[in-house]
Amino acid sequence: MAGRKPQLKLGAFLSVPGNHLAGWRHPDAVPDCDMDFAWYMRLAQMAERHLYDTIFFQDTVAVAGSDALKAGDRTRTRLSRIVKLEPTATLAALAVGTSRIGLVATATTTFNEPYNIARRFATIDHISKGRCGWNLVTSQIEDEAGNFGLDTHVDHALRYERAIEFYEVVSGLWDSWAEDAFLRDKESGVWFDPDRMRFLDHKGKHFACRGPLNVPRTPQGRPIVAQAGSSEPGKELAARTADVVFTAQTELQAAQEFYADVKGRTYRYGRTPDDIKIMPGITPVLGRTMAEAQEKYDQLQSLLPDEVALAALARFTRGVDIFSYPLHGPMPELPEANSAKSRQKLIMDMARKGNLSLIQTARAVSAAQGHRVLVGTPDYIADELEEWLRKGGADGFNVICNYYPGPFQDFSEMVIPELQRRGIFRTEYEGTTLRENLGLRAPPSVWT
Amino acid sequence: MAGRKPQLKLGAFLSVPGNHLAGWRHPDAVPDCDMDFAWYMRLAQMAERHLYDTIFFQDTVAVAGSDALKAGDRTRTRLSRIVKLEPTATLAALAVGTSRIGLVATATTTFNEPYNIARRFATIDHISKGRCGWNLVTSQIEDEAGNFGLDTHVDHALRYERAIEFYEVVSGLWDSWAEDAFLRDKESGVWFDPDRMRFLDHKGKHFACRGPLNVPRTPQGRPIVAQAGSSEPGKELAARTADVVFTAQTELQAAQEFYADVKGRTYRYGRTPDDIKIMPGITPVLGRTMAEAQEKYDQLQSLLPDEVALAALARFTRGVDIFSYPLHGPMPELPEANSAKSRQKLIMDMARKGNLSLIQTARAVSAAQGHRVLVGTPDYIADELEEWLRKGGADGFNVICNYYPGPFQDFSEMVIPELQRRGIFRTEYEGTTLRENLGLRAPPSVWT
Repeated sequence: MAGRKPQLKLGAFLSVPGNHLAGWRHPDAVPDCDMDFAWYMRLAQMAERHLYDTIFFQDTVAVAGSDALKAGDRTRTRLSRIVKLEPTATLAALAVGTSRIGLVATATTTFNEPYNIARRFATIDHISKGRCGWNLVTSQIEDEAGNFGLDTHVDHALRYERAIEFYEVVSGLWDSWAEDAFLRDKESGVWFDPDRMRFLDHKGKHFACRGPLNVPRTPQGRPIVAQAGSSEPGKELAARTADVVFTAQTELQAAQEFYADVKGRTYRYGRTPDDIKIMPGITPVLGRTMAEAQEKYDQLQSLLPDEVALAALARFTRGVDIFSYPLHGPMPELPEANSAKSRQKLIMDMARKGNLSLIQTARAVSAAQGHRVLVGTPDYIADELEEWLRKGGADGFNVICNYYPGPFQDFSEMVIPELQRRGIFRTEYEGTTLRENLGLRAPPSVWT
Repeated sequence: MAGRKPQLKLGAFLSVPGNHLAGWRHPDAVPDCDMDFAWYMRLAQMAERHLYDTIFFQDTVAVAGSDALKAGDRTRTRLSRIVKLEPTATLAALAVGTSRIGLVATATTTFNEPYNIARRFATIDHISKGRCGWNLVTSQIEDEAGNFGLDTHVDHALRYERAIEFYEVVSGLWDSWAEDAFLRDKESGVWFDPDRMRFLDHKGKHFACRGPLNVPRTPQGRPIVAQAGSSEPGKELAARTADVVFTAQTELQAAQEFYADVKGRTYRYGRTPDDIKIMPGITPVLGRTMAEAQEKYDQLQSLLPDEVALAALARFTRGVDIFSYPLHGPMPELPEANSAKSRQKLIMDMARKGNLSLIQTARAVSAAQGHRVLVGTPDYIADELEEWLRKGGADGFNVICNYYPGPFQDFSEMVIPELQRRGIFRTEYEGTTLRENLGLRAPPSVWT
């Protein structure tokens, strides 16, 4: 059982076939696991066996880099993560082969209708008996706009305005029914109590939605809401709506500031800091010795051609043709972006602080797309995680692996037992719902 | 193995807790199976054990009757099928516990984006290894419009125009990749061949969509497309796009005309009659004797209050206040409707031919919502199905049950063995994909 120490939360960010852009080329990698559902199930069950709070799928509603492809850039043909299983269908399927782990998937507020999203996630919460989470995002990449009738991408501020209203509609729809609304009484023939049903009658700038939702109140009250934006409006939206915040943080001090900032904003919305779990991403590279770990990291990096690294960096450098700059010269300054603002800032900070050249920056980004890479022994990595937990840098971590299944198995079998020995990670699930396992209180409800 | 006789196709239309509006009140019914995924799985596995071609879920993106509810009509609180699991998430989950049966769900073209629909159904086809189908509909009920920002429902003709273009985008996206597009070659580091990828670059009246889809070509080539519209534009759309047509037919002659009509139109689109399987709905009520079957039917009808029957009928009679007409007087004439046109005509024909009063019409509609009710012995029902198959009225049937699981089990255990004895239904699955089991040829592809 959990002791009195603060407890780490762990998410398994399943970025198949691997988050490192050359991860799929590793001799032990399984390149086609991106489309093989049996692998998704195997990884989800492995995560459950090791007591992760949740698995997590990011999402893009496009072939990433398709604009560059269209312009004839064949480097893109060397990037994996071009296709994948759609995350909500995948979550629903994974609910059947698992029983305790949380199931979180991303769905964009930019190219969906709130009624459809409210309904699908509520359904997965019912199918999984209270283990579902929705990662609310605004769409980041220009490629996506072209699949939804738009020539250019929706403006950053407008996307957040829409996201806030989207959330209001979705969370309102999740309150359509009181828990006891359905009588299903054969004798009297009464199916439900209309006084325990609510029309939403939302009329806003972006949406009008009458409701009620055609799904009852869910086992968790409502699905968990996750957020990943780290820009100003992103943090504000998180403070207002999120149960869980995913973020990219590479330095403890910046992580502490982000942590305090987001948690501090919760009061504005009648919430408290405990209502949000902040989970930066980490990419572990494990060895029995520090040297062995570093060797593993170097091996992966050796599989990454320079032009692929540059193509990866180019995703975050719109407005600047980085290919025209000298490889070993300094990282060029970037104009303010409309998408992935905070990730862009993180990359620039990393380049400046490490005094990295263009190609060094590109190769670092390719390794973990801006997330923190932890190269070392199980003890070293456990030390780092514990320090961030104790010092207010994180409530937990989202574990992102360079390829699957090896590094995921390494972290699960080598680091998790060490975290358990230190008394900062569970040895059994606390509850049956994701909300219970995350230690979150019941959501607000119009019915109580 | 199948003999030389024409083979019946069978779909299990899972309308939980029961398609009969008082079905849930039957002593053996399970009223809360509408939200209990374990029951969905049990029924799907039962259908697979009995070799049905497919299970099928209809859909409504609203609480049906919510406009009447809003107006204070408490009769609606006596209707079941108010809430349900969202069908695409449900399909994905059912893929995990089944291995051979087809999985078909409805998704509307009226309130979705084609990229999202193409992607989700393609994903379910991958998860199920080629067993997925999309029932393409235009939304029928006014209740739905209010959940998507519209005050009134989209005009019937415009809905079909949008549906046709929606299909073009979806089927185009399903052709984004050749089967051999993904090399995933660790040695060379090449992930895919850009010459085996296609941008759709669709620009139409309702949609613009660049593509490509971020899901590879699916195990069946592409998911099966089902259609259920029976109006003029509905039949035209079916002839152009459908692999399977669901329809409500109560008389052999009308069924034959519909069958010949839809199949005849296929030539206009470079298709042949064999490319479409036409499957009317049937609701079986089984007894060891005709009298026992009739008794069962009467028992169900006795559970149905008049006002519930009228409320059910009212769904198809917009523009006429049927509650103001005498119960035992004739069925009033109806003005032309904007939605569910063909169903409305079917109901009026049924009332006229049977010389039914208003309440008799309402009670008949409540029993099967316009579908054919077959009350009798296994032999009698098998005779009827065989006759329609032999005489060009149907290629198969969609079995719709008054409640679950009893009547579904009765049909599966009493009628299916009789169909097998007659050599008109399989004794084992012919293939592993839905397309193979339906006996359909490979879909057209830009890559062959």
